[in-house]
Amino acid sequence: MSFIQVESTSDFSYHNLPYGVFSTSDNANHRIGVAIGDFVLDLSKVAHLFDGPLMKNNQHVLQQTTLNQFMSLGHLVWKEARLRLKELLSEDCPILRDNSELRQQAFLERSKCIMHLPAQIGDYTDFYSSRQHATNVGIMFRGKENALMPNWLHLPVGYHGRASSVVISGTPVRRPVGQMQPDDTKPPVFGPCKLLDFELEMAFFVGPGNELGQPIPIEKAHEHIFGMVIMNDWSARDIQKWEYVPLGPFTAKNFATTISPWVVPMEALMPFVLKGEEQNPKPFSYLQHDDPYTFDVNLEVNLKISELQEERTISRSNFKYMYWTPKQQLAHHTITGCNARPGDLLASGTISGETKDSYGSLLEITWRGKEPILFDSEGKVKRVFLQDGDTITMKGFCQGNGYRVGFGECSGTVLPALNIN
Amino acid sequence: MSFIQVESTSDFSYHNLPYGVFSTSDNANHRIGVAIGDFVLDLSKVAHLFDGPLMKNNQHVLQQTTLNQFMSLGHLVWKEARLRLKELLSEDCPILRDNSELRQQAFLERSKCIMHLPAQIGDYTDFYSSRQHATNVGIMFRGKENALMPNWLHLPVGYHGRASSVVISGTPVRRPVGQMQPDDTKPPVFGPCKLLDFELEMAFFVGPGNELGQPIPIEKAHEHIFGMVIMNDWSARDIQKWEYVPLGPFTAKNFATTISPWVVPMEALMPFVLKGEEQNPKPFSYLQHDDPYTFDVNLEVNLKISELQEERTISRSNFKYMYWTPKQQLAHHTITGCNARPGDLLASGTISGETKDSYGSLLEITWRGKEPILFDSEGKVKRVFLQDGDTITMKGFCQGNGYRVGFGECSGTVLPALNIN
Ligand SMILES: [Ca+2]
Ligand SMILES: [Ca+2]
Ligand SMILES: [Mg+2]
Ligand SMILES: [Mg+2]
Ligand code: NI
Repeated sequence: MSFIQVESTSDFSYHNLPYGVFSTSDNANHRIGVAIGDFVLDLSKVAHLFDGPLMKNNQHVLQQTTLNQFMSLGHLVWKEARLRLKELLSEDCPILRDNSELRQQAFLERSKCIMHLPAQIGDYTDFYSSRQHATNVGIMFRGKENALMPNWLHLPVGYHGRASSVVISGTPVRRPVGQMQPDDTKPPVFGPCKLLDFELEMAFFVGPGNELGQPIPIEKAHEHIFGMVIMNDWSARDIQKWEYVPLGPFTAKNFATTISPWVVPMEALMPFVLKGEEQNPKPFSYLQHDDPYTFDVNLEVNLKISELQEERTISRSNFKYMYWTPKQQLAHHTITGCNARPGDLLASGTISGETKDSYGSLLEITWRGKEPILFDSEGKVKRVFLQDGDTITMKGFCQGNGYRVGFGECSGTVLPALNIN
Repeated sequence: MSFIQVESTSDFSYHNLPYGVFSTSDNANHRIGVAIGDFVLDLSKVAHLFDGPLMKNNQHVLQQTTLNQFMSLGHLVWKEARLRLKELLSEDCPILRDNSELRQQAFLERSKCIMHLPAQIGDYTDFYSSRQHATNVGIMFRGKENALMPNWLHLPVGYHGRASSVVISGTPVRRPVGQMQPDDTKPPVFGPCKLLDFELEMAFFVGPGNELGQPIPIEKAHEHIFGMVIMNDWSARDIQKWEYVPLGPFTAKNFATTISPWVVPMEALMPFVLKGEEQNPKPFSYLQHDDPYTFDVNLEVNLKISELQEERTISRSNFKYMYWTPKQQLAHHTITGCNARPGDLLASGTISGETKDSYGSLLEITWRGKEPILFDSEGKVKRVFLQDGDTITMKGFCQGNGYRVGFGECSGTVLPALNIN
């Protein structure tokens, strides 16, 4: 246990220790911190205490404005740094505990920290690795017989997303304008998106990269995976439908993608590892791994509509529903020789469970708008897609015995569209 | 004219003055340079001479290791810098001409310069804006009736590409391995790509970016477009065919994208501006501009196969064949609010003319492999797709009256696949 008291329902237990980048109202510099309970430990103030064999010559990485350099150092360095962190925060270690001056400087109230993107994201990729989600979307758009495309069970389908518009939780999201074709028999129209949706996802940050032309073998993939966040892949369904054939989603997704600010290290997730679904057909060897690498992360999506004060949980899902694992995603991404770089963000794809109350998008929950979410008994207050002023807040945590390893919030509020013609 | 002599067939006339980033064998630092004839002017050595009202407080941007900061300053600054460059290089101006010490330091032989990526590319996007190319591909994959998708004439179709694997001309390209399904009736196979192709494209670099949520209006788009390069979008056709439905090209494109090193400023291209094809249906207002903004750039693709010494020109195309202009591409890219950043790269898509000898890919030139390119009269030496050791070199220039505004080379040689199973 730590000398910092942590409530049992806090996301940020002593077993978690996620990394983030923050500033404060009196110091606009971006600094690397670690969340514990209601506090943030400012690593720039304690970098000198990381004096293990690997970190002692790399203390400067804890004094950067992003996590990219720390990410680039690799899993042995992360392990040493985490062990040291656990030691420094433990109730038995006097170094920080009994140094009131340093404690004063190094600990901040978490509620007063302004969070920023944890890394400079060189490239962002979005996968499509939940079987139930791919099946749901397939049924809606291509019918039950052709629900899963022939490639889906052979490889983790994915596409390159837009790195510039990945934003941190709390950033408002402007309703996009664009082209759509609401009536298939008529020409397209231009205007504000009417079918604005969220996608419940998780995403991992890449640690060390690979050389162009040299794939990351699946046996080594875990050494390249730094940690995870929760992600909302905001999606303009009407724009997407009109634009996406044949080259995939483009402007329907590039207006904003929100991530939670605290990157939970893979080591903190390992106690919650689970064996995934049996994969049949058996994937090619470059995608095979025997050790479990999916995780029991309880996920929820909360919707606060502008008409009501209280938010409502509209979905409860779990990361364990993924068919393809992060290791498989990274091995596939690089199999042609694509070079990953520290700070790259790879997202899971929408995470849907088997029942309607566990679906990861409004498209699925309302089944393309046919089954609205009702907020009153008369059916006057309802939603099929998001309205201006609505807030989506995603949360997630692993439940330990009396503690949690959680992700905090991934939240965003919809602003009205600009008036463009 | 300049005091530097330039041959009439040189790409780098006094009318061009493209920007690039180079180093030399005796100085590994990346520096910004300008190509003129057989020389490169090292701007880091003459930054102090840019003393106009806009540049005088921004001279440091010429001493960076990439062009991003210079790009970010905007078109009025670029104009002033270019005017000053023209002055400094002119035969009438003694400042450089008569300062033999400074000339000694600031001019290098171009053949001795090692070229690097001109900018840190935050995001790379590839469009699909040549009507003939989209039609050719459509006919091959969907038949003549459905050749152009319904959205194609309404918006510039595009997708997000992989920024990390954009490489500079001369970088060898490793043949990718991956999944493909050569026989539609059988399961997919894994191995080296057999249908390796090039795509002849041009691409522009973004100058000043826009705020997230604030589209770039088409009337202002030109202020955000810095300059152009030639691009080879290497494509693994067999991998692409298997993976691309429904989310678009992914690993089939992310193993390498080659660009030419010298960024030709839009101002140097303006004397070669042309009115594009009449657009019918008329696009939505956010895509309308009356002023011409396509360019008469002669393009060629040369193939040197490993069996022969001489390269052969296998296609002659022209940028004027584009249907959608760079201004339209940028306005469309940002219409939903996507934020562009200085150094972003936006590519045209494969540029195909109306006849087979002007097609921009082997897929089209050999019509999916049915019409091989023959290198001898007996048909023993031939190509349908690229073989190991083959080199593709793309070139392009605008022809002025006794001078050229050219792009140099965009070249890459295919290395054999790694042995992965
Ligand atoms: Ca998604
Ligand atoms: Ca292309
Ligand atoms: Mg998104
Ligand atoms: Mg490419
Ligand atoms: Ni270099």
